[in-house]
Amino acid sequence: MSNQSLKLEFWYEFASTYSYLSAMRIESLASAAGVAVEWKPFLLGPIFQAQGWHTSPFNLYPAKGRHMVRDIERIVAERGLRFALPGTFPQNSLQASRVALLGSDEGWVAPFTRAVYLAEFADGADIADRAVLAAILRGLGLDPERIIARIDQPDLKQQLKEQTTCAQERGLFGAPSFVVGDELFWGDDRLEQALAWARRG
Amino acid sequence: MSNQSLKLEFWYEFASTYSYLSAMRIESLASAAGVAVEWKPFLLGPIFQAQGWHTSPFNLYPAKGRHMVRDIERIVAERGLRFALPGTFPQNSLQASRVALLGSDEGWVAPFTRAVYLAEFADGADIADRAVLAAILRGLGLDPERIIARIDQPDLKQQLKEQTTCAQERGLFGAPSFVVGDELFWGDDRLEQALAWARRG
Repeated sequence: MSNQSLKLEFWYEFASTYSYLSAMRIESLASAAGVAVEWKPFLLGPIFQAQGWHTSPFNLYPAKGRHMVRDIERIVAERGLRFALPGTFPQNSLQASRVALLGSDEGWVAPFTRAVYLAEFADGADIADRAVLAAILRGLGLDPERIIARIDQPDLKQQLKEQTTCAQERGLFGAPSFVVGDELFWGDDRLEQALAWARRG
Repeated sequence: MSNQSLKLEFWYEFASTYSYLSAMRIESLASAAGVAVEWKPFLLGPIFQAQGWHTSPFNLYPAKGRHMVRDIERIVAERGLRFALPGTFPQNSLQASRVALLGSDEGWVAPFTRAVYLAEFADGADIADRAVLAAILRGLGLDPERIIARIDQPDLKQQLKEQTTCAQERGLFGAPSFVVGDELFWGDDRLEQALAWARRG
């Protein structure tokens, strides 16, 4: 029972470990709840820089970083997923984010997003590598040459900047975040609550 | 069915809003799970200072602070609790923590802890005020004069310092935290998971 008036925005950053958790389960949970999901990739880097951080808080605060890895290991074990922190963390998510925006326009953002997260956090691939992105696109039956060529074009660059500015203006400070009307929910552990809020309509 | 071999450490800071949430529900959840709870008050201040913070991250990062307040408002509405951020935040929790340590030795730490959190986050009282602590103790049928006089004694001061150092050595970086053997769980939203872990024995 899908009700298009019930909707939720899913704001995510490709370098974010907890966003991976949400990306893998949001479609099934939202579908069961009758809530439509709008996929909103954005960059956390500029938002972190504005609050004085030059890298992930999980690098800045090592105890927090150690807990994050163990926390996600425990969660993926329950959910039947795999997880390993990539050699470079956080990864540069600029190109993947621009491709995802194109995917939003063309209707393949959800499977592309899941495939990027699996490559990054289950298989240890480098998502800043265009060959990795091309292989993902090919695996989805899309045309990598056409799409990769779009990455450097000004319209997509501008679209990502605007999306990130919009996130900041909406008060987002981390990822994943879920927005329902004026309500902001932060963290994979708030997904069920955000969906319940969306169901109130 | 209580099984004293199943246990969980509950590390909390009296100034912490999310610790309030856990304090109000941990005894009933743990009891239902047959897990014994060890109440461990400690100070986050020295731990935050060691990572370069001079106050709560909710003050340092205002967007995060705004979300925390709204997040807790939504949660307390579901749980039938009240919440308002006190005029001074974070409050100075030094004296309440020392009293709680005495309560651990004497067996009244759980009701004392809940009463302090309710005074602070439901009724807006200042828990750094000895008259507030005395009224709480009196309400629990304890002797405020004897107990308040213990606050400045060296043994209790030393005990709190050691507990805080122990927290830091165990890798704690926030509150509430739950420890089961070598496993660390951070945040009220991990309480159920920590109890499930404790049940494995």
